Amino acid sequence: MSNIDQLLQQSPQNLPVLQATFGLERESLRIDQKTQRLAQTPHPHKLGSRSYHPYIQTDYSEPQLELITPVAKSSKEVLRFLGAITDVAQRSIDNDQYLWPLSMPPQLREDEIEIARLEDPFELSYRQHLAEKYGKMLQSMSGIHYNIELGADLLKLLFERSGCQSLIAFKNDLYLKLAQNFLSYRWFLTYLYGASPIAEQGFFEKGLTAPVRSLRNSHLGYVNTEDVSVPFDSLENYISSIEHYVSTGALSAEKEFYSAVRLRGSKHNRDYLTKGITYLEFRCFDLNPFDNRGITQETIDSIHLFILAMLWLDAPQAVSLSLDKAAGLNEKIALSHPLEKLPQEAPYQDVLTAMEELIRHFQLPAYYEQLLADIKGQISNPRLTVGGHLLEHIDNLSLETFGQQKGKEYHDYAWQAYYALKGYENMELSTQMLLFDAIQKGIHFDILDESDQFLKLWHAKHIEYVKNGNMTSKDNYVVPLAMANKVVTKKILREHGYPVPAGAEFDSKDEALRYYQQVEKQAIVVKPKSTNFGLGISIFDTPTSLTDYEKALDIAFLEDSSVLVEEFIAGTEYRFFVLDGKCEAVLLRVAANVVGDGRQTIQQLVDQKNQNPLRGRDHRSPLEIIDLGDIELLMLQQQGCTPESILPAGVKVNLRGNSNISTGGDSIDITEEMDSSYKQLAADMAKAMGAWACGVDLIIPDTSLKATKENPHCTCIELNFNPSMYMHTYCQEGPGQVITGKILAKLFPEVIANI
Amino acid sequence: MSNIDQLLQQSPQNLPVLQATFGLERESLRIDQKTQRLAQTPHPHKLGSRSYHPYIQTDYSEPQLELITPVAKSSKEVLRFLGAITDVAQRSIDNDQYLWPLSMPPQLREDEIEIARLEDPFELSYRQHLAEKYGKMLQSMSGIHYNIELGADLLKLLFERSGCQSLIAFKNDLYLKLAQNFLSYRWFLTYLYGASPIAEQGFFEKGLTAPVRSLRNSHLGYVNTEDVSVPFDSLENYISSIEHYVSTGALSAEKEFYSAVRLRGSKHNRDYLTKGITYLEFRCFDLNPFDNRGITQETIDSIHLFILAMLWLDAPQAVSLSLDKAAGLNEKIALSHPLEKLPQEAPYQDVLTAMEELIRHFQLPAYYEQLLADIKGQISNPRLTVGGHLLEHIDNLSLETFGQQKGKEYHDYAWQAYYALKGYENMELSTQMLLFDAIQKGIHFDILDESDQFLKLWHAKHIEYVKNGNMTSKDNYVVPLAMANKVVTKKILREHGYPVPAGAEFDSKDEALRYYQQVEKQAIVVKPKSTNFGLGISIFDTPTSLTDYEKALDIAFLEDSSVLVEEFIAGTEYRFFVLDGKCEAVLLRVAANVVGDGRQTIQQLVDQKNQNPLRGRDHRSPLEIIDLGDIELLMLQQQGCTPESILPAGVKVNLRGNSNISTGGDSIDITEEMDSSYKQLAADMAKAMGAWACGVDLIIPDTSLKATKENPHCTCIELNFNPSMYMHTYCQEGPGQVITGKILAKLFPEVIANI
Repeated sequence: MSNIDQLLQQSPQNLPVLQATFGLERESLRIDQKTQRLAQTPHPHKLGSRSYHPYIQTDYSEPQLELITPVAKSSKEVLRFLGAITDVAQRSIDNDQYLWPLSMPPQLREDEIEIARLEDPFELSYRQHLAEKYGKMLQSMSGIHYNIELGADLLKLLFERSGCQSLIAFKNDLYLKLAQNFLSYRWFLTYLYGASPIAEQGFFEKGLTAPVRSLRNSHLGYVNTEDVSVPFDSLENYISSIEHYVSTGALSAEKEFYSAVRLRGSKHNRDYLTKGITYLEFRCFDLNPFDNRGITQETIDSIHLFILAMLWLDAPQAVSLSLDKAAGLNEKIALSHPLEKLPQEAPYQDVLTAMEELIRHFQLPAYYEQLLADIKGQISNPRLTVGGHLLEHIDNLSLETFGQQKGKEYHDYAWQAYYALKGYENMELSTQMLLFDAIQKGIHFDILDESDQFLKLWHAKHIEYVKNGNMTSKDNYVVPLAMANKVVTKKILREHGYPVPAGAEFDSKDEALRYYQQVEKQAIVVKPKSTNFGLGISIFDTPTSLTDYEKALDIAFLEDSSVLVEEFIAGTEYRFFVLDGKCEAVLLRVAANVVGDGRQTIQQLVDQKNQNPLRGRDHRSPLEIIDLGDIELLMLQQQGCTPESILPAGVKVNLRGNSNISTGGDSIDITEEMDSSYKQLAADMAKAMGAWACGVDLIIPDTSLKATKENPHCTCIELNFNPSMYMHTYCQEGPGQVITGKILAKLFPEVIANI
Repeated sequence: MSNIDQLLQQSPQNLPVLQATFGLERESLRIDQKTQRLAQTPHPHKLGSRSYHPYIQTDYSEPQLELITPVAKSSKEVLRFLGAITDVAQRSIDNDQYLWPLSMPPQLREDEIEIARLEDPFELSYRQHLAEKYGKMLQSMSGIHYNIELGADLLKLLFERSGCQSLIAFKNDLYLKLAQNFLSYRWFLTYLYGASPIAEQGFFEKGLTAPVRSLRNSHLGYVNTEDVSVPFDSLENYISSIEHYVSTGALSAEKEFYSAVRLRGSKHNRDYLTKGITYLEFRCFDLNPFDNRGITQETIDSIHLFILAMLWLDAPQAVSLSLDKAAGLNEKIALSHPLEKLPQEAPYQDVLTAMEELIRHFQLPAYYEQLLADIKGQISNPRLTVGGHLLEHIDNLSLETFGQQKGKEYHDYAWQAYYALKGYENMELSTQMLLFDAIQKGIHFDILDESDQFLKLWHAKHIEYVKNGNMTSKDNYVVPLAMANKVVTKKILREHGYPVPAGAEFDSKDEALRYYQQVEKQAIVVKPKSTNFGLGISIFDTPTSLTDYEKALDIAFLEDSSVLVEEFIAGTEYRFFVLDGKCEAVLLRVAANVVGDGRQTIQQLVDQKNQNPLRGRDHRSPLEIIDLGDIELLMLQQQGCTPESILPAGVKVNLRGNSNISTGGDSIDITEEMDSSYKQLAADMAKAMGAWACGVDLIIPDTSLKATKENPHCTCIELNFNPSMYMHTYCQEGPGQVITGKILAKLFPEVIANI
């Protein structure tokens, strides 16, 4: 190991030492809120098939979820992944279930534990074998596995400095050293993060008399039988030893070897000799019940710092002896009282010094100095460790009440902004929804560009790219370009025989003025050709004078060099969402408003309306907070009101002239109520345009009349190539319609048969 | 007719009286420049198939082109169509041929005239019959047919005021009245626009002794035999009469009835009774040799005014009598000397008064007053008519020299800016080229939005929309969105194993500054993530200091909230144009430059270079004019030169640091020279991206090395989703490659088998 030891210490300061990729796996039990016991329902159908689901699996038993993050390029990203997957898991299980926040399960009986109903017969029989060998109770303990691979640049630079001939041999040496040191100092982490202090009544035959740091990390945890002892002194010995136990039947498979650290990258250990170890899996972390994800950012980064310290330190000389000694120390600490300090014989100062030197040598950001300071504080004061905090919640050697309370708290947190995806709130709501659906159904995802809402989704070899949740390979390029152009859209619709407002386009005011003769007796709309935000639009719902017409032209020409003069269409505007030839949703948008109750002031009514969890700010919620700003106050004044006016019961007051959701308008899902003839017509219009995903804005004077192509009884005023989806799903009124899930199902019909 | 007469006069002033659609057909003979006689080559293969070509057909004989405009919504548009089709026709026939600009052919012998090789056996035998009946010589006369349909709103408003019960009956009455009046006053147009004053030697058995106004409009023109006389007094009589002549064999088909006006809209006359006349075709116009299109805008609009005057005037009382009289008058005027005034008996004042009243009643724009003034001028002074002008060019009773000279002039005009499409120069060059190709191959086109470069193309029921010449239904929507995002593009290419510059994206300057450690020894590029015009980019082709790196970050963050730091790739940049999985062109762009000849100053060399017809301004030419502005002068100064410096022979001086075509750079087509391995790699990259039309920018240090996927010997620095096409076709150096034609062929493989 001589060319591995001291390697970090001799590296230049600008080595990208923090570069690494991370993966987390978290186990958690589903609990029934009514019984407060293990859920007896099967793994949720909503979560798709366990035969391929990359993110949400079942572990040992049917109600034990295993949440698996994708490989993350940073420690921040990995926790974000875990948060999102936790969020999806919580909202995909029955609403009256929650995830048990502790490593040790609540009270349970062996017969309540159903082995996971996996499709793979080998996996099923493997679990049955484990049940017989270790008992089902032990299997119900949950924890977090922490996977780390050192960064490619970092490895390459270290390799170059090592003098090694083979990168594979170098990586094997490096990761084996890391594993050895990790096992040597594992007790350090047991002290800091141990959080399985008690077992609920009935878990062990003989109950504990006092809380400890970590049952799970002691011999009472889920460990191999005593006859299994695998050496870590060399890779060859490690491999041969496990193969030996498998051949004698002491282990039923290589993966039955439970160690706090596992070599990873190949299915069979022997392959490491030729292919190299790719990464390490650390399996010793208890769930931190104070975080809904079971682990905090600081813990992830502190462990990362610890792992780097393990690289900084020299490898143990007499490996087996050292590891045996360390195992004894770990057992002692795991079973010590949570308020007990580290024992004198524990060489924690070695770790702290390594961390200090590392931070100094590589000039790590101040954040890591803070992490180290916190660790030192926890070593001085056991009360500051997770185990120390948890002690305060132990009641009569039980954590059931605490676990129930935290579980409910995290359940409610997940359902609080149920339209958003935790950790991804900065992305557009529709993209958050699509990501939620992808995680739920087990479609792989990668955010290629976060601010651009650009996703890569895939299943097996089938890749789909998606932007803004609805821009996909299913639409051909020229169609949205056509829809982006009002004039082109109208021409195409008209050519196909669909009703659009009559009108004309003008590039000069003179020309447009001459046109007045033709429209002087009509209600008209004057608008710039290409702006989209309502700027420069004048609406005359009765015939207007030449003077006002000219003013409207001036306003419109300020916005664009082309101006449209169209007939004004009277009626109510509805948004039809069409996907793949079918109208999936119909929405009515109405202006921001309140309805009186004869008691409250307008201000109070507004405040009450803003309590709706659907209302937020900046398009990150399905509805916007209503502000009583200048425009609203003017609108009230015109109606003879002030914010202090008390409205009679049932009287509605509009606070805005426009019906945009972005200015506090209400969304009303009327998909069921709308006559199917209009839905068909909207779908036909989208088809005529060639659009796959499309918002169709129809003005309908009287929805009781049936629409036909010959007598449409409506007019199409716009097609939208990037239609908002969330507003159809989460509405002020009406049931709401699933949209993003349908898009995903159409992108991956081989995964999602129907929705 | 009582409800038709006076209808216009009693209409309100705001009636859209000018509303109409127009269509023009122009016949013209192909002439061989070497022999100055009728071309003996077949109809050009480039023009696709005559079995469906909507725009360019052959008329009677193989060298007689018939140019047919689509239906135009204005008189301006119709002439623009004709100009473009003329342009395409001229550039599709052999370069040593031109279009004969006169109605009367040059000297020709009967045996030189080959009947058009049409595929339709009926059409062929019909022409053979005509040859026997009228002689091939007469058929060689060419003219313009003027089709007009009154606007839909105009017709509707007139119909509503007419009191008629049936719109079909109303339209038949209206168009029949128009036809009657047109024939009554046809002599007016013969006087103004007659332009077939002589026949070349050998055309008639007996030569003329003096020039006349219009042989073609006299009995010497191509008219029915004397035994055919069709009444226009009623639609029923008109139809029955023609049917009678067809049944007796006096006419071989209804269409053999040659009248100055023809009812149009149905294949069989009898259908007009039930379906109505749709429009009228006026067939009496000689080619105006002073315009390359054979007709001027003023003539088109004056005829329109004349037609409206025919509606303004009451219909003749005794139709047949009136029309006979008018025919006599027309014959007299047609055969009068071009400088002879209208005879006293010609009631031209009726027409002028009707025009005047019309202009006043409907307050037509001043332009029409000017047209009327011009007509009055021509009536007062026959020298001002086309015939009057033409007289000056008659030499020894021949116009051959004049025809040859004008024909050559129009030929050269067409070839002058051979990359552009006449009349459409305001559109993007690539779109002009695609329109040229569409007209050439007989694909129907409609410009849905001119400023947006948005085309509708179709053949039979197959419609394709195209924007910017290359945005089509062939690309899926998300691919160009991915290409528009540099980060996403790089990720996708990298995932597919293609070489892209290493680098990182930063949202904060702090983060980016920390990254300096990793790049301090490299050549790098610092650039804003999403700007495209070279703004905010700093290139360090040798390792840079932290200070300069920080400055570069500041500059880049001014342009975008995300900044990319990438390795600098040394080598030469080439643009590969990939279409449908195949690299179709490779271009090298070099900075604006001149190469000395030991004689001229830099200024003179620039002026000489700017003479290239490919150079123009504002992207409407394949190359840009080089200006010696501040940037160029600075660049010269840095090289120790001024515009007055005389460069030694062969010495090249760059005038710009950048190689953009838009700043005067040179385009060099090296498609043939580039090693095919790079073309394959570029095509594979586009395929990996899923792109149909795509520009691939590769930096290649040494093109003599062969590229493989494993050892690409190049780096992809950008993919372009809207790649310029024209620059590959019309180059400063190299043969140039057809691109738009290939796009069209791929859009319409059923029409264009190969290109």
